[in-house]
Amino acid sequence: MIKGEAPEMTMRTNHPILERLMRENRLDGVLFWGLENVRYLCGFTGSDGVLMVTAEERVFLSDSRYEEQARGELEGAEFRRYRRKIEGVARLLRSLSARRLGFESSAISYENYRSLKEKLPKVTFFPLGREIQRLRACKRPDEIAKIRGAIQIASRAFEETMGRFRPGSKERSAADHLEWRMRRGGGEEFSFPTIVASGARAALPHGRASEKKMQKGETVVVDFGVRFQGYHSDETQTLILGRPDHEQRRIYDIVRKAQERALRAVRPGVSVRQIDRAARRVIDQAGYGRCFGHGTGHGVGLAVHEEPSISPRGQGIVEEGMVFTIEPGIYIPGRVGVRLEDMVRVTSRGCERLTHLSKELKDNIYPR
Amino acid sequence: MIKGEAPEMTMRTNHPILERLMRENRLDGVLFWGLENVRYLCGFTGSDGVLMVTAEERVFLSDSRYEEQARGELEGAEFRRYRRKIEGVARLLRSLSARRLGFESSAISYENYRSLKEKLPKVTFFPLGREIQRLRACKRPDEIAKIRGAIQIASRAFEETMGRFRPGSKERSAADHLEWRMRRGGGEEFSFPTIVASGARAALPHGRASEKKMQKGETVVVDFGVRFQGYHSDETQTLILGRPDHEQRRIYDIVRKAQERALRAVRPGVSVRQIDRAARRVIDQAGYGRCFGHGTGHGVGLAVHEEPSISPRGQGIVEEGMVFTIEPGIYIPGRVGVRLEDMVRVTSRGCERLTHLSKELKDNIYPR
Repeated sequence: MIKGEAPEMTMRTNHPILERLMRENRLDGVLFWGLENVRYLCGFTGSDGVLMVTAEERVFLSDSRYEEQARGELEGAEFRRYRRKIEGVARLLRSLSARRLGFESSAISYENYRSLKEKLPKVTFFPLGREIQRLRACKRPDEIAKIRGAIQIASRAFEETMGRFRPGSKERSAADHLEWRMRRGGGEEFSFPTIVASGARAALPHGRASEKKMQKGETVVVDFGVRFQGYHSDETQTLILGRPDHEQRRIYDIVRKAQERALRAVRPGVSVRQIDRAARRVIDQAGYGRCFGHGTGHGVGLAVHEEPSISPRGQGIVEEGMVFTIEPGIYIPGRVGVRLEDMVRVTSRGCERLTHLSKELKDNIYPR
Repeated sequence: MIKGEAPEMTMRTNHPILERLMRENRLDGVLFWGLENVRYLCGFTGSDGVLMVTAEERVFLSDSRYEEQARGELEGAEFRRYRRKIEGVARLLRSLSARRLGFESSAISYENYRSLKEKLPKVTFFPLGREIQRLRACKRPDEIAKIRGAIQIASRAFEETMGRFRPGSKERSAADHLEWRMRRGGGEEFSFPTIVASGARAALPHGRASEKKMQKGETVVVDFGVRFQGYHSDETQTLILGRPDHEQRRIYDIVRKAQERALRAVRPGVSVRQIDRAARRVIDQAGYGRCFGHGTGHGVGLAVHEEPSISPRGQGIVEEGMVFTIEPGIYIPGRVGVRLEDMVRVTSRGCERLTHLSKELKDNIYPR
């Protein structure tokens, strides 16, 4: 096994959150089952494998399908091949004589946990939940650059799709065009199935593009994102096809104000709940509290939804370098929906908006 | 709650495998956490929610984001909204007075399992693993029709992309075109990131399309699929750019023979291992046993990888109506790779090949 000569490895093994978790919980090692953390800690970009981290070494385990790829990608970790995953991991843990093992409890299924435990009766398994997910919450400069790259591709694709948002066009056609441009722009994959939800469908917070035709007078929620070098973008525009009526204008203005308030609340040291509250209070006070059923935002990085969670029950304090969305919305079932979403990076004194598309109502009246 | 008047619900609650599992294990109900089984059993197509099935009723739980969608899609199941998932599920289970509860142990994370168990100390949780995944293995005629639809879209897109597989073109450009055509043809999403792996990269069984240019004399593994009405396709062609050399021809012929043998072995009553062995023996006997590191096939349906697993350690007997792939391959690291993959449906006496693209060497010499 590689014994820690590589500076890259030392740097990464010494991730402060990981070190602290291991020390405070007296862990001999931590087993990573989630592919995002695996990629973050050892560079493997494939879709199956497990990473074991101890104070001295890192071992990445996978099967023969990924051997060649792993050997090319791993940084500061040794590759070990298994034929059967659980057996391979159990064999490694026995060889390391691990007694007290932390593991990513949200990433491993109950079934795999149970199989592993049965094979290793002497090992104490110590579940690490949200605390281990915080590992990736503060982004390094190289990560921010990749996020900016993803946003750049997505925004440009959106601009190239503007002409497709018009009465009589299908939601699906506009989404297809947007996705095609994101691909052509260098996107690896979409962050999620693109949402183009018009009219009553705009009240579905997750209304994937359908065969419905957009109509004059409707609002259209467009929520889209792309992955670039492993990192995601996520942004939502709400368009109005034609002159906004009184209700549309009112709701749009409330959501915009809620978003502005939340953006202004972001800085190191505030709790995630304070940011959520800043947005929620505006919507509550306008009488639409029941029409905003989701959190105000979420971290974005190697996963499109990650820590921190900016919500009424979110936990923790905002730190410099975090990247997350601010995306309040109002949804009136059967009638109308508005959501505005930007991504921000927490700076030393506030935040920088990473997404650039205008959220002003006048810039979102279509066709353009 | 709906009390079982709906014939659709009765039909579905009485899924024979589910009924048997509940009876044999004396379960008051089964909790489904995996989205494929949720969709299969109640029709919900969104991306968050849980289904509880008892002998008398079905309750689907989700949050407000999915309420409108769920109310439109659910068949024979009642909708119940939660704000927090674990609390919502716990509340339901208490109201049903469930004592002994089966659950999908491969679909729930250890973290969620533990939270649920803490809140319900009196409930006995009974893990259901592979047996519950078998639920969807035998396809109904309407499911077969959707699978055929997906295959149709994918094959046609492949035919429209043939001209793009030529020396000097990038793998990524060919993949982009193929994906674009699958989209245009009505595909909802790709089954997985499209693989176009040429030359030495063909030896990566999961070599996603890269910026590498394809070269004369290389083999190119193209593994692609698309989702249509929730159901997936999955097929692999291996192309040769130019006149195949001796080694390419030899390996191609061995893989083809292995695939033919496996196809001929498929019929109701044989074990999945017999099918795997039929393919593996050909490759072993030709001396390439160590170059075929994955299973011979896998079920395909609402998930692109599902039961049955056609592999050396796969379990169970083949039944009429199952749909799975047959995809042997030989990979020589740093040099060459060949994989041929078809999807089949098990008939009363053998199998029907669902995919249509020719696997003959002469039809796979490019450019065409």
